[in-house]
Amino acid sequence: MQHITIDTIKTWERFYRANFINCLTGFKAVSLIATVNADGQPNLGVFSSVVHLGSDPALIGFINRPLAAAPHTIDNIKATGVYTINHIHPTIAAQAHQSSAKYPVEVNEFTEVGLTEMYLPNVVAPFVQESNVKYALSLVEIVPITHNNTFLVIGKVMDVILADNLIKNDGFLALEQAESLASLGVDAYYTTQKLARFGYAKPDVPFAKL
Amino acid sequence: MQHITIDTIKTWERFYRANFINCLTGFKAVSLIATVNADGQPNLGVFSSVVHLGSDPALIGFINRPLAAAPHTIDNIKATGVYTINHIHPTIAAQAHQSSAKYPVEVNEFTEVGLTEMYLPNVVAPFVQESNVKYALSLVEIVPITHNNTFLVIGKVMDVILADNLIKNDGFLALEQAESLASLGVDAYYTTQKLARFGYAKPDVPFAKL
Repeated sequence: MQHITIDTIKTWERFYRANFINCLTGFKAVSLIATVNADGQPNLGVFSSVVHLGSDPALIGFINRPLAAAPHTIDNIKATGVYTINHIHPTIAAQAHQSSAKYPVEVNEFTEVGLTEMYLPNVVAPFVQESNVKYALSLVEIVPITHNNTFLVIGKVMDVILADNLIKNDGFLALEQAESLASLGVDAYYTTQKLARFGYAKPDVPFAKL
Repeated sequence: MQHITIDTIKTWERFYRANFINCLTGFKAVSLIATVNADGQPNLGVFSSVVHLGSDPALIGFINRPLAAAPHTIDNIKATGVYTINHIHPTIAAQAHQSSAKYPVEVNEFTEVGLTEMYLPNVVAPFVQESNVKYALSLVEIVPITHNNTFLVIGKVMDVILADNLIKNDGFLALEQAESLASLGVDAYYTTQKLARFGYAKPDVPFAKL
């Protein structure tokens, strides 16, 4: 085993350090967040900071980087109050990754990377038609994280669109069947294989394998 | 494809809804967070809400559930200002899952589930010796999320301990070699396989496969 202190990490070259710290937290969901501005101009970006906040109410958060680095998604969410989160599978991984390029605000990343806008009548933001699991959120709150000028954007789930047969009889979603990818660090994409589902754990009682 | 609205989701039975909403965000890191209280009594719990906040400074967050449901970890972090996050691999997955049982505060989950405390001289919280990737954090801030009484606990990375040969030449951590697991929903554990690393994306320039 290696022991590395923060004093060592601080001496590292910027990109080396960013790769290391981004990987340290482990595998994460990777999704396309789609928005529109007040004029209806779509925007699409890759985010790997989506986090479950609670199920009742159904609240989901994501971290938006500082405004100077990543203004479009958060600006559009402030303007419209609505956004969609769309899972990524291997067939669209390269297009999804390309949407992380810094396009000018007037460019429609859907068109640029070759993905398709899909709309519901009551949701102003587009979904990614190709995505197997996607959901629309209504903005609840933007919490500034003052220590590094990032933001926790909190939304409530409004509409879910997903491929048939993913929902198991207890509400579990077999996302490996949708080929939803995980990511690692800033640039790596992973497929997954189920190891096990374990039953609810109680003290002094062996749990079931589901 | 299926379209499910929040009005339908709200009618679902509590555990069915929780499974569904927990799965919706996708795969996530799953880790053991270890703490001690002011008397040095260890506590261990499973968390799948760890999120990268930034690399410089190296800030990492996790969501702590409401105090009534999950008081021990956050109470200990408030008391000592220090905690460790420890990756889980298949060999220790069952023990890790068992640590999610609601043990009384005076019970040492390390002993109960069969994992080993490991200490650094300058870190009051224990690491999980068996874990292949683990890091100690110093508390920066606890941000209350008022909409559902959860908390975003923000810490800065202080010490990292990891298995040899995981760090690639650009700082990337090949966590599949450490067998770090991902999780899904409240009870599923997944292994991963690398699909690809994609180079930095720029408009109108094909990115490299790393």
